[in-house]
Amino acid sequence: MSRWEPNARGRLEQAALALYSERGFEQTTAAQIAERAGLTERTFFRHYADKREVLFGGASALEQAFVETLAGTPETAAPIDAMGSTLQIVADFFLDRHEFARQRQAVIMANTELRERELIKLASLSDALATTLRGRGVKDPAASLTAEAGIAVFKIGFERWVGADGERPLADFLRESLDELKAVTTGG
Amino acid sequence: MSRWEPNARGRLEQAALALYSERGFEQTTAAQIAERAGLTERTFFRHYADKREVLFGGASALEQAFVETLAGTPETAAPIDAMGSTLQIVADFFLDRHEFARQRQAVIMANTELRERELIKLASLSDALATTLRGRGVKDPAASLTAEAGIAVFKIGFERWVGADGERPLADFLRESLDELKAVTTGG
Repeated sequence: MSRWEPNARGRLEQAALALYSERGFEQTTAAQIAERAGLTERTFFRHYADKREVLFGGASALEQAFVETLAGTPETAAPIDAMGSTLQIVADFFLDRHEFARQRQAVIMANTELRERELIKLASLSDALATTLRGRGVKDPAASLTAEAGIAVFKIGFERWVGADGERPLADFLRESLDELKAVTTGG
Repeated sequence: MSRWEPNARGRLEQAALALYSERGFEQTTAAQIAERAGLTERTFFRHYADKREVLFGGASALEQAFVETLAGTPETAAPIDAMGSTLQIVADFFLDRHEFARQRQAVIMANTELRERELIKLASLSDALATTLRGRGVKDPAASLTAEAGIAVFKIGFERWVGADGERPLADFLRESLDELKAVTTGG
């Protein structure tokens, strides 16, 4: 049998999410995830450091998408507008992922360790966006605050999208969330 | 000898920070902290669950100060203004604490586990502020976004204050940080 398994990461991700939803994160082992996916435990550990990381396999791709998109917006755009158009483009990352995102969020919210990991992901994303803005000549504290504002908009918009029925795309929720942030900061 | 030790928490906090600065967080034990403070290891564990928590002993008092101050601002104030005046009042929490805050920040930034704990503290604070705003009749997503904006302002303003020479009070940095957030969200 070949060691190469087609789409092993995706199969492990789906199996992990199903098991975490059914019996809880704590009660699931890497071996059980591999078995559900029809793979070996050894294959599991070739792809993921531990059972927590299965839920964060997309984090570095998401960060890369954010950074590359932001870096590619016109330099003449105001930082908040560059951030707004970046959010619109990155939202496509989650097309057809509503049900997956909904299940994943439920698993994460039920577990302190996973909530912590999610916070770290967002903090890392914020740092990366601030660095990208500085690279475009945005000074501090504007760079840091624009990055934090973008992450706040992403976090709140994402939570609302996950809590909705999936009919409207994430991009809509992110646009509304940014508009609302603008309204609240101007005292509206 | 009495089991009561005057200001044991403060002494343990100072001793821990001194040792973490001198030899690093990982290389310091609870026993060493207790010894430096002239206390027993048993006394250490009566006050703190572990050596990480010594650096977060003020977190619940800070959260309480934030929540009570925000709840006490006039209900007629726009949410962002209520948040702004809350930040000004809570800043007094850190009067005469610049050197302590500077050392603490350096220790935290040098250690992944401590950075994670700091993120959790801020996320908890954001949740508490959003809940308080909802209690004042602010709807979502305005409540969540105002809370996230307040925490972003606090985080960035605090980092800038810690990095400065301590001559100007934290309140100044928080006011500037809020003004800058307003400027960036309006595309300024």
